[in-house]
Amino acid sequence: MFLNSTTDLEQAQSALECFIQEHFSAQKERFNYGDWFEPLYFDLCEFTGRKGKRIRPLMLMLSYRAFQGKKSLSDPSLLRSATALELLHTFVLMHDDVIDRSEKRRGLPTFHKLCAGRLVISEDRDRIGENIAMVMGDMVFAIAIQTLHEADFCPEVRDRVMSQFLQYTVDTGSGEILDILLGCQDVARVKLEQIEEMYHLKTTRYTFEAPCVMGALLAGAGEEKLEAIRRITRPLGLAFQIQNDLMEYKSLDPSGPLCSADLLEGKKTLLLKQAFVALDEVERSFLQMCLSSVARRESALLKIKELIDKSGAVALLQSRCEQLFLESEAAIDSGVFSPEESTSLRGSLAIVRQQVRQVA
Amino acid sequence: MFLNSTTDLEQAQSALECFIQEHFSAQKERFNYGDWFEPLYFDLCEFTGRKGKRIRPLMLMLSYRAFQGKKSLSDPSLLRSATALELLHTFVLMHDDVIDRSEKRRGLPTFHKLCAGRLVISEDRDRIGENIAMVMGDMVFAIAIQTLHEADFCPEVRDRVMSQFLQYTVDTGSGEILDILLGCQDVARVKLEQIEEMYHLKTTRYTFEAPCVMGALLAGAGEEKLEAIRRITRPLGLAFQIQNDLMEYKSLDPSGPLCSADLLEGKKTLLLKQAFVALDEVERSFLQMCLSSVARRESALLKIKELIDKSGAVALLQSRCEQLFLESEAAIDSGVFSPEESTSLRGSLAIVRQQVRQVA
Repeated sequence: MFLNSTTDLEQAQSALECFIQEHFSAQKERFNYGDWFEPLYFDLCEFTGRKGKRIRPLMLMLSYRAFQGKKSLSDPSLLRSATALELLHTFVLMHDDVIDRSEKRRGLPTFHKLCAGRLVISEDRDRIGENIAMVMGDMVFAIAIQTLHEADFCPEVRDRVMSQFLQYTVDTGSGEILDILLGCQDVARVKLEQIEEMYHLKTTRYTFEAPCVMGALLAGAGEEKLEAIRRITRPLGLAFQIQNDLMEYKSLDPSGPLCSADLLEGKKTLLLKQAFVALDEVERSFLQMCLSSVARRESALLKIKELIDKSGAVALLQSRCEQLFLESEAAIDSGVFSPEESTSLRGSLAIVRQQVRQVA
Repeated sequence: MFLNSTTDLEQAQSALECFIQEHFSAQKERFNYGDWFEPLYFDLCEFTGRKGKRIRPLMLMLSYRAFQGKKSLSDPSLLRSATALELLHTFVLMHDDVIDRSEKRRGLPTFHKLCAGRLVISEDRDRIGENIAMVMGDMVFAIAIQTLHEADFCPEVRDRVMSQFLQYTVDTGSGEILDILLGCQDVARVKLEQIEEMYHLKTTRYTFEAPCVMGALLAGAGEEKLEAIRRITRPLGLAFQIQNDLMEYKSLDPSGPLCSADLLEGKKTLLLKQAFVALDEVERSFLQMCLSSVARRESALLKIKELIDKSGAVALLQSRCEQLFLESEAAIDSGVFSPEESTSLRGSLAIVRQQVRQVA
């Protein structure tokens, strides 16, 4: 019943990967608009099919198992609900990449770059590629909801799962907007708590809370357990996002071509704000000056890196991550879950930590 | 039972207007993200509350009535389903305006312009406003689906309505992409049938077919009737879009400041293509030359207007519209509907024509 062994996990991952690939091919009929749509459909399949961690659908399945859901891990309705989360993620990535004007995703061109590459060369090719990617993202969002809508669970449970899913998408949007708005503000004015709230809305809600709550709901868990799940996932999501930031920061190599989408876009990460807090007055002014000119001068990026290194913020956030994982563990042992559920949740947490380590 | 009198129509319109305004205020709780979100929420309420024709929700209610739906026109579930269509329209407008970089919507600033106006002045303020509007549009889309999801109809009917609604949103997206792609092509290469297909996908599907099919489904109509409805709405949607194009064209006043979003964006409207077809070789080359420089020179716009005037395309499309309305009428009399249904549908068609005339 529980997903304790590595074999179980591998089976779940493999069933999921097969389902996602097949599900998307099966959508071809829905996208049957004529020859002109073929290249876009091809690009969409390639983009969705890129090997990712599939952490969201996997979390749903782990959660379903932890709460003793009756269906097997290869059940199509369960896989379908899990796949809806992966498609939601695809949609979020497509729009995020347009917003950030990113060029690469998972080592390959972003979706709007693929679209632009299909067009004849013109001065507004990039913009047209972004426009197409925006609408294609909207379509993927609709398909994600359709995918969840068609999962075969009893109407009452499915209704609740759908309501939650839609609310998580609204919250994710609000987090993205907060990210944009904080990006427009000076680092001195942005508060640490605002950045944490933004991470919670933008990342935790749909990456950890949605999968775990949805999996538990599908398995029949009650409100008390759902609340406890939220207490587990909140620190987990924050740790995940901090690790992501640290990884992007580590990829800043002074000997190679310097680039940091986060810093160039003016993103207010916890790393940047923690560094700012730890620096003295003179260094802070210098950091602010570098941040305001980073889009124009590569040397500014190098200076920012030096200041962050000096601040000790990296070590501080690394130990914060350890702390957050402990918080998650403590929430598992809050007494709400049965011993079997706790064991299973601890197993899932270990898998997430493993995934996060792969990221870092 | 039927909606025949003007009073009935006015009552439906007034119930709808009240419900839309109240429904959006009731969403405040869902958008309770903190002070930073307040101005965006305010702008969203103002944008959605702008007096529009509400043609989509009204069509759903007319269709529900025509097929003898049991609920009254002031029933909250019926109004909720209708409102979902208006919110879908709001979302489409928000994204469309970003794509077209439009500045005005219903005589006031577009949503991304409202967002930009909330930001401090900077060189990338416009772009940040577009990014925020894009994400807010995503959130409105999720709210539209949530609104429909919460309507109280029997699970089987609601499931079918939701499936249709989602499919219509996917189709609308495909139509928008086709619009963008045709915009990149030379007017000589674009075929009349492609433009008509684009209009069908982009406009007809969600403006006429979705409301009528959803209203009929909610009232319990069977597949044969739904098919017949699609035959009524296809010419209707085309007529509506042609009238829209003609209206934009008529607003081109050589004595005032010349501007045409359609022409500046390179849109391939039926009007433009019909004009191209009707011109001689020399005039066609001249039209192509003007189109390629229209974004740089205002005089090119004036020349295009002269060429379209000369081509006789306006009169041709006006008579095409009359023809299309006759086609819709003929489809009502196809023998599928009961005499009562036919009478009611004819009444609805008259209302749509009235609305279209207001547009033109």
